[in-house]
Amino acid sequence: MSMEAQFTEHLKKINGYNEAISLLYWDFRTGAPKKGADLRSETIGILSSEVFLLSTSEEYGQMISELEAKKNELEPIMRRSVEEARKDYDLSKKVPPEEYKNYVILQAKAESVWEDAKKAADFSMFQPYLVDLVASTKKMIGYWGEKNGSPYNTLLDQYEPGMTTEVLDDVFGKLRDRIVPLVRKIQDAPNKPDTAFLFRKFSKDAQRDFSFKILEQLGYDFEAGRLDETVHPFMIGINRYDVRITTKYDEKDFRTAVFGTIHECGHAVYEQNFDEKLSGLPVEDGASMGIHESQSLFFENFIGRNEKFWKTNFELLKSFAPDQFGEVGLEAYYRAINESKPSLIRIEADELTYALHIMIRYELEKGLFNGDLQVEDLPALWNDKYEEYLGVRPANDAEGVLQDVHWAGASFGYFPSYALGYMYAAQLKNAMLKDVPNFDELLEQGHVAPIRAWLTEHVHQHGAMKNPLEILQDATGEGLNAEHLASYLEDKYTKIYQL
Amino acid sequence: MSMEAQFTEHLKKINGYNEAISLLYWDFRTGAPKKGADLRSETIGILSSEVFLLSTSEEYGQMISELEAKKNELEPIMRRSVEEARKDYDLSKKVPPEEYKNYVILQAKAESVWEDAKKAADFSMFQPYLVDLVASTKKMIGYWGEKNGSPYNTLLDQYEPGMTTEVLDDVFGKLRDRIVPLVRKIQDAPNKPDTAFLFRKFSKDAQRDFSFKILEQLGYDFEAGRLDETVHPFMIGINRYDVRITTKYDEKDFRTAVFGTIHECGHAVYEQNFDEKLSGLPVEDGASMGIHESQSLFFENFIGRNEKFWKTNFELLKSFAPDQFGEVGLEAYYRAINESKPSLIRIEADELTYALHIMIRYELEKGLFNGDLQVEDLPALWNDKYEEYLGVRPANDAEGVLQDVHWAGASFGYFPSYALGYMYAAQLKNAMLKDVPNFDELLEQGHVAPIRAWLTEHVHQHGAMKNPLEILQDATGEGLNAEHLASYLEDKYTKIYQL
Repeated sequence: MSMEAQFTEHLKKINGYNEAISLLYWDFRTGAPKKGADLRSETIGILSSEVFLLSTSEEYGQMISELEAKKNELEPIMRRSVEEARKDYDLSKKVPPEEYKNYVILQAKAESVWEDAKKAADFSMFQPYLVDLVASTKKMIGYWGEKNGSPYNTLLDQYEPGMTTEVLDDVFGKLRDRIVPLVRKIQDAPNKPDTAFLFRKFSKDAQRDFSFKILEQLGYDFEAGRLDETVHPFMIGINRYDVRITTKYDEKDFRTAVFGTIHECGHAVYEQNFDEKLSGLPVEDGASMGIHESQSLFFENFIGRNEKFWKTNFELLKSFAPDQFGEVGLEAYYRAINESKPSLIRIEADELTYALHIMIRYELEKGLFNGDLQVEDLPALWNDKYEEYLGVRPANDAEGVLQDVHWAGASFGYFPSYALGYMYAAQLKNAMLKDVPNFDELLEQGHVAPIRAWLTEHVHQHGAMKNPLEILQDATGEGLNAEHLASYLEDKYTKIYQL
Repeated sequence: MSMEAQFTEHLKKINGYNEAISLLYWDFRTGAPKKGADLRSETIGILSSEVFLLSTSEEYGQMISELEAKKNELEPIMRRSVEEARKDYDLSKKVPPEEYKNYVILQAKAESVWEDAKKAADFSMFQPYLVDLVASTKKMIGYWGEKNGSPYNTLLDQYEPGMTTEVLDDVFGKLRDRIVPLVRKIQDAPNKPDTAFLFRKFSKDAQRDFSFKILEQLGYDFEAGRLDETVHPFMIGINRYDVRITTKYDEKDFRTAVFGTIHECGHAVYEQNFDEKLSGLPVEDGASMGIHESQSLFFENFIGRNEKFWKTNFELLKSFAPDQFGEVGLEAYYRAINESKPSLIRIEADELTYALHIMIRYELEKGLFNGDLQVEDLPALWNDKYEEYLGVRPANDAEGVLQDVHWAGASFGYFPSYALGYMYAAQLKNAMLKDVPNFDELLEQGHVAPIRAWLTEHVHQHGAMKNPLEILQDATGEGLNAEHLASYLEDKYTKIYQL
């Protein structure tokens, strides 16, 4: 067997195990009987250990090295796959196994403490764990080797290859300077949308039926996926042709399901449209967390919160809940679903204020790893920044520094990807308009296919063959640029709030 | 680590893999997107190979041998587990791996050819594969070593430990002598039940809701299981506390779902009530295919087709389909659901004629392995026997010799377990009446718990700690006896048809 074939064969085995793990997880979330939970966790543990062994075996390392040695003879897909494999292999392999295991155990423990601390709204319970997590992560960075000149850049690189604080400081600064005044203006605007009708009862079954219709319209392939219900919505690739999404139905706020479904659909359509040639290889993956998020946000905001999209779909929506919307007009509906209001909770934030939530987290993380910020200072700094950027102040740690699980899982450097996703999406939309000038018209007709095709051409098909900035450059002709998102938000909200 | 602990640890790993495989299979049947099917099959193949390696490793064999050496020091559960482990180990290990692999490949190929042959109603397409399957199975028997004095007994023993053709010939003969005259009498009976109302439209949702109610009443534990929809209903143990069932909804015949669900519930309640002490060990399994079937048939027939059971449940059923049953009385309903009519298709057969379908298959199998019956003679013999026993003759091979998948999967020796399940169930019912004399009254009140408790005490909890004849002997005080089933059927059908 050639070395390429051995490498592919080895990956096939890892992929098989991962398919099983993904399904065990999906099933756990979508309705596995609760008494089976402990055994289920054990089973996930058994298979995960096997994947770790397969991913860090000497044999696999040897394959990667041999392929690297003849790098120039490899086809581009194989060459890039070997690079990705090397990156993952080294990340797992450079850390002494015992320490890595302790790091994982610390995360599991910290997540459970974080849950309790959040319930008690008491940061001091979680503080010692977070101190440990930051220290351990710094140690990991020591093993991994610093990348792009600072410890925090090393972390950023794991989620957003090539991204640095220099770039983020610049774009986040520019974006903040445009958003903050807009948020203030909206707060003072006299003409606020009426949103009362959003909260009338909308039956779960009707929401589900509507969700299916919208997914079909958006080009989600139901022969290669399915929609189910969970407490926290997610997208999960079980295998190359089985990319599932879940949503949550809130009978008192249909927006949770509708926009959640559209969001996850964006993630899924990305994975459903990877080039078949990438099948089974490490490049069969999103280019980065930020690029993945750009696709879900493109769907959620640039399609789902677009006025034209609702031109026909609002009538469809009404047909599923005739009592709720009987007298509401399209414009009133459009304004209501785009209400902007500074809030304390990131995951409930609107399109305009969302990036501010991210910037706060980014600045704190950066301070922890590159500066001299101490864990004990986080709660007060968090609250101060909320007051400064959003004009609201958490009343306790639960709605402040404890709201997100990310840090408990040592996912430092992850948050920026969410805001980058917004910027990427706005840049892609801007570039798309040159090729698809009738964007609004297409949405009005419920004809999303040409929009999706553009995204597939410029983003989806490439998987992880390019890094995020290459995707952006090739698709838009420019690098990261906050201007497009800023202008989009200014135009949109000036109109909605008649500023 | 003690040898017992090593053994248990090794089994834990195998069980983890098996949980993943079971879930991958369950998901495949209950709604996995169809485009993912090929990769899904590959993944099942990858994990199954691992299970085969773990189940046949020298290391595992060594553990079994060491435990056998100190057999007398072992606790009963461990001792019996080691016996079961030895049996399975030898079955897999005695065959040269390459030949075993070819045998499995032949089965897979034969199943797909069988499907085509059945569609074409043409036995000649399947015949060469069946010739191969019989020859290969004979070769396997050579490796396994003949058991209980004949090749066919070796096969029987795999499904029904200890069962022989001597026993079967005797009980099947006695049963046939009682059933055949009864079938003839029913055919001539003037007073046949009216069944037209059974086939009125009964919506799928209402059938599902009714199924959930009945499952609760029967004591199926929904915290350790779930009900889903599939084309072919089945029960599957994902893990010890996750025993799932599926059913099929036919809107033109609600009996498919109702009796199918009750049947699978019987299988599931068996596995949900294994003694916790058996957890994770080879004895955490049914005692045999026949004993497993006795539980499903006990539920389906002795509970589900009992007149008293419907005393209150018919009212409940009506509440889910008021239009269908409006004017139908309990007795008319009871007679209709117990209609007996000789038919060609085993899985559609009624309680009375079912065993005859099995006897035909049994006689043919026995002839193939113990006698000089040739594969090419099967179609004609099959049709002759149907005419002789049931008075009906298949018009083609699809409704004749090709109707079941079992032979294509080399499951020779499996069929008798179905009929044994009927006999076991009738014997258990008879024995139960001594302890639970108010059986009918309990059903009338929808109070199934004491009936289930008796079955748990005498059957469920023991898992595979006893062999089927031990279960029977201990529960009923006698060996296999066709008399109980024969009398039950005579009583029941004489009344229903007013013979």
